Amino acid sequence: MDRYDIAIIGTGPAGLEAAITGTIRNKKVLLIGAKDLSQKLRRAHEIQNYLGFPAVKGSDLADAFQRHLDQLGIGITEERVSAVYAMGDYFALQAGERMLEASTVILATGVVQGKLLPGEEENLGHGVSYCATCDAALVRGKEVAVVAYSAGEESEAAFLSEICPEVKYFPMYADAPRLPEKVNVIREKVTALSRAEGGMRVETAEGSYPAQAVFVLREAVAPGQLVPGLETEGAHVKVNRRMETNLPGCFACGDLVGTPYQYIKAAGEGNIAALSAVSYLDQMKNR
Amino acid sequence: MDRYDIAIIGTGPAGLEAAITGTIRNKKVLLIGAKDLSQKLRRAHEIQNYLGFPAVKGSDLADAFQRHLDQLGIGITEERVSAVYAMGDYFALQAGERMLEASTVILATGVVQGKLLPGEEENLGHGVSYCATCDAALVRGKEVAVVAYSAGEESEAAFLSEICPEVKYFPMYADAPRLPEKVNVIREKVTALSRAEGGMRVETAEGSYPAQAVFVLREAVAPGQLVPGLETEGAHVKVNRRMETNLPGCFACGDLVGTPYQYIKAAGEGNIAALSAVSYLDQMKNR
Repeated sequence: MDRYDIAIIGTGPAGLEAAITGTIRNKKVLLIGAKDLSQKLRRAHEIQNYLGFPAVKGSDLADAFQRHLDQLGIGITEERVSAVYAMGDYFALQAGERMLEASTVILATGVVQGKLLPGEEENLGHGVSYCATCDAALVRGKEVAVVAYSAGEESEAAFLSEICPEVKYFPMYADAPRLPEKVNVIREKVTALSRAEGGMRVETAEGSYPAQAVFVLREAVAPGQLVPGLETEGAHVKVNRRMETNLPGCFACGDLVGTPYQYIKAAGEGNIAALSAVSYLDQMKNR
Repeated sequence: MDRYDIAIIGTGPAGLEAAITGTIRNKKVLLIGAKDLSQKLRRAHEIQNYLGFPAVKGSDLADAFQRHLDQLGIGITEERVSAVYAMGDYFALQAGERMLEASTVILATGVVQGKLLPGEEENLGHGVSYCATCDAALVRGKEVAVVAYSAGEESEAAFLSEICPEVKYFPMYADAPRLPEKVNVIREKVTALSRAEGGMRVETAEGSYPAQAVFVLREAVAPGQLVPGLETEGAHVKVNRRMETNLPGCFACGDLVGTPYQYIKAAGEGNIAALSAVSYLDQMKNR
């Protein structure tokens, strides 16, 4: 398997700047995330303080970022990373159904919007899952539920409907879901997940629905769950000024490492993270 | 005297971003530094990794920064700050002949290029000075020497020639100095400053020149000398991830606080410093 020098997870300003700086430093970079970049950025009405772009629309700034990637020939791998494992001298990334390898990892996934559901964390791996593709073998033939926080999750639900007799789909977003007819869309606000005989129940403001397994699908997974062993402080990854986490070779930057949640701050940290990864790679080579 | 909310020293990317963010947050900002922005930036051949500006010439990036300042109506006060004093709940800045006041200070002066001269630090204030304007009264009528690291210092030498019978000028830069005829330009590399009877001597590779006082004029003054009591680590100011120095209300950012020396990193840190200053001001107000 090809091993990348630097795997960067996230295509907001932090991840993009890290990819650009890593590429310029001749490293083999894998950039994983949404191809249309950060939705938060694209939808920003006006950004006033990204130095060099006075009063810029989010979509225009995103277009400028895309041109920068294009000019350097940097592509985006659109894949959901569900886990990152520290393997000693490299990292294994579970990306959809594939396992990818990289010598270093830069986490730039942003902050998880909103809190976890009551009952979510304690049942993770025991009735609650974050990745339909990964757990397909486990849920085949079962009745499942999907709690989805964005339209981007619909393809996962469609996939589940191919292998499961029943899929209850709880959209936690405004747009009308576009799903196979077989999927049972229940537009009720999910308030909690609870254990029940034979599996789980999805509790909503209006009712309670059984499911043998529940998938909670968000744009970002909580960092401590994404990378086992990673030291966190609340919703943030703990880093020092070099953007080093507690795991050697694993760096983090952007909103994920703390406030202020600002585009230029995120980009600056992406630069530091990339150069710290480059230093780390150089040290590894010289050992 | 008018007291500013935030005085920002330095007009590289860190200082500019701090000024923009402070202004957007409705603070009364004083931005002090070179009106034509950072010379290092202006002269950069091509910058490849300032996210959003693919393969940009330094002068074009500087022009974009200037447009951003203009759009927000931010002016630059072109003055040499020779000292910053922590006065308790505010800071006093010695700027040329004026004393300015600000509730908070953001240091963004870049790194001092090159080392101090042998004999410079130990004779500071006793024969060696960093500011002709400030020490005019002390050197009137004396024979002085100027060791100048950039053409920007020529106005100081010209001023000295008005009040001193002799000015020896040692240009430590390539361009031909443009100075009053009375100034004695000596194009020899200065290697050290030493104490001698009646004052100092300027030692060069080729000779040794007496002077009652020596002015060493660089674009940036070493931070520990600029701000008495400031904690430094070598050439850098010690800060935490919020860009706080050891002095409450005094923040630092950009190359001054450490590597990597990168434009986007500096801008990101300027953003953090400004928002930390805003928080500090809000806390002061609520006390």
